[in-house]
Amino acid sequence: MDYGTEAIARHRATRGKVSIASKMPVETMDDLSIAYTPGVAAVCMAIHADKSESYALTNRGNAVAVVTDGSAVLGLGNVGPESAMPVMEGKCILFKGLADVDAYPLCLSSQDSEVIIQTVRAVAPSFGGVNLEDIAAPRCFEIEEALQDLGIPVFHDDQHGTAIVVLASIINALLVVGKRIGEAKVVFSGAGAGSIASAKLLHDYGARNMILVDSQGIVQRDRTDLNAMKMEMLEITNPADVSGSLADAMALADVFVGLSVGDIVTQDMVRSMAPGAVVLAAANPIPEIMPDLAAEAGAAVVGTGRSDFANQINNSLAFPGVFRGALDARAPRITTRMKIAGAEALAGLVAEPTSERIIPWSLDRDVVPAVAHAVASAWHSEHGLQDGH
Amino acid sequence: MDYGTEAIARHRATRGKVSIASKMPVETMDDLSIAYTPGVAAVCMAIHADKSESYALTNRGNAVAVVTDGSAVLGLGNVGPESAMPVMEGKCILFKGLADVDAYPLCLSSQDSEVIIQTVRAVAPSFGGVNLEDIAAPRCFEIEEALQDLGIPVFHDDQHGTAIVVLASIINALLVVGKRIGEAKVVFSGAGAGSIASAKLLHDYGARNMILVDSQGIVQRDRTDLNAMKMEMLEITNPADVSGSLADAMALADVFVGLSVGDIVTQDMVRSMAPGAVVLAAANPIPEIMPDLAAEAGAAVVGTGRSDFANQINNSLAFPGVFRGALDARAPRITTRMKIAGAEALAGLVAEPTSERIIPWSLDRDVVPAVAHAVASAWHSEHGLQDGH
Repeated sequence: MDYGTEAIARHRATRGKVSIASKMPVETMDDLSIAYTPGVAAVCMAIHADKSESYALTNRGNAVAVVTDGSAVLGLGNVGPESAMPVMEGKCILFKGLADVDAYPLCLSSQDSEVIIQTVRAVAPSFGGVNLEDIAAPRCFEIEEALQDLGIPVFHDDQHGTAIVVLASIINALLVVGKRIGEAKVVFSGAGAGSIASAKLLHDYGARNMILVDSQGIVQRDRTDLNAMKMEMLEITNPADVSGSLADAMALADVFVGLSVGDIVTQDMVRSMAPGAVVLAAANPIPEIMPDLAAEAGAAVVGTGRSDFANQINNSLAFPGVFRGALDARAPRITTRMKIAGAEALAGLVAEPTSERIIPWSLDRDVVPAVAHAVASAWHSEHGLQDGH
Repeated sequence: MDYGTEAIARHRATRGKVSIASKMPVETMDDLSIAYTPGVAAVCMAIHADKSESYALTNRGNAVAVVTDGSAVLGLGNVGPESAMPVMEGKCILFKGLADVDAYPLCLSSQDSEVIIQTVRAVAPSFGGVNLEDIAAPRCFEIEEALQDLGIPVFHDDQHGTAIVVLASIINALLVVGKRIGEAKVVFSGAGAGSIASAKLLHDYGARNMILVDSQGIVQRDRTDLNAMKMEMLEITNPADVSGSLADAMALADVFVGLSVGDIVTQDMVRSMAPGAVVLAAANPIPEIMPDLAAEAGAAVVGTGRSDFANQINNSLAFPGVFRGALDARAPRITTRMKIAGAEALAGLVAEPTSERIIPWSLDRDVVPAVAHAVASAWHSEHGLQDGH
């Protein structure tokens, strides 16, 4: 099937993917008097007396804003807010279909960090959480960080959704090859939002020998072209302070994580890795190296971002369950422990990991409940059960 | 029925009123490949090539943001955004149920005009229209005016929804009593958003003898306590420059429009009106004068804001059809002609107006199609058929 042609035809037929549904009838005058005036005034005043009642008496507690500025949409780049809408609507129906979360797309006309931050602050009272999406690095980092005090979870999926699925994949891949995270050399191709968040989460999980590689080569202390975020990453990566190319980095690596561009890893580079090499080539639609070539060059475990090969590294394994869990726990933010718990739950769904199966299938119905429960439990174990929820 | 108690119970049972529905399935990998990656990329690029395709390929063209700052909610006052949510959700399900418009509530954390304006500008690419709601005067005027260049309709319902229904009511009420708008003396109790917009629309329709009365008395040129908007209204009201109380204003009036507070009009004040008096006492839940008392004092036609009396002056007669029509025409704003066309269509639905029936019933299924068609036609007749729609 030509998915692009089919997608345009279907989107035109339905005028997109998201619509509104009503949870109460408005057929009779009594309906109106309960859903709207005069009855609704009592509902307003109940919330006025106790703001937390907005979670019980409105849809807020199940509502997530999917916010983008359209600056880094899929692999398409800075296509702007109108063109980003189909991706955000897609995200929203995944939220609904997989996790019964009511997500609404907000595609913003500004790419100014301050405007984006202020806009998210402004709309926050209507939502129980905010999923930032497809916002270019390094802007995405400052926006997310500035919003952590909002009182509802603000989660940049390109960072943390990716990081959770990468961590889950590596947990099981290392089981398959019999290695430990603390001793594994992990090389990232790409030093954008996904790689940086993945490296941070891997570090929190115990990884101690990681190297980031961007388009200019290994991220290293002598380079003068690094942005603040890459500089900061040197605190937890490149312990031996090596410089060089991607090929240099990959020599004797145990794990390759590709979150960059297609077709930049050769079979020789895979052959130079340590025995039992794990190759996660997640660039879309063309992986950093095609999985058959990687396997032929000796990789023990191979994953990609694609659904037509084994081991799909796919954010949709993470974000629906993460938000479901955070909303259920009414957590005001998503902590590192919650992310690790989500990754462990995801990994744990594969009872016996093999090279052909390190993570569940994207549409596996067990994923969301398991991730949600782990994420909610992690919040509760960190912070206790509060306010009756 | 105790609507307040029932409303709280029902809202608690369903956790509010608005949820998200999906227009495409996400059950199979093929579904995902069409609704999301990789197929969705072609949809994004089709919009990137022609922005107007966002109306054909996403839900934008049917989507309305219902935006409030919670500063003037129903008659409850400045209860804030969380407490405003039940009203906004109610509005959204009316939009859906009456006009198949997908409306989403955005309750804002700021009551600063500049922040509200910037927020609406920021979220605009996701929406085909913006319904401003329950924002206090005079802030509501500047916010709405500043946003008229947005390229999508921005419509403050408390102003124009009210004005359209008031005009429709007066058109038919004057038919009943055999008077003409150009000669009628019209007195408004209240000089807030609804009264000011109604007076403006009535002026555009031909009214030449109107008086606004606020809590300090008749709005008149010698007063030093008037805000800018009330000052401006003196250009089209109070032609004889009279001063005094509401009672003074009502003497020999043909039409009374109450958009103020309950129980402030006496039977003597109604008796002082001209023969064939029209009394529209729309304060909620207690009208300016109860309809039986007004009738007993000689009013020929009486309306209120309540559903349990004849002639309910109710915004839901206007806003669903107005937005349906504006979205259908893809009008970038809602013009005076569109508002008058909507009011005339609404009035026209009552084939033979009587004192007991000057406007349709709120849930009359003929209302939205008639108003929508009139509003869309008015746009087309002003601006022609453009861009194939």
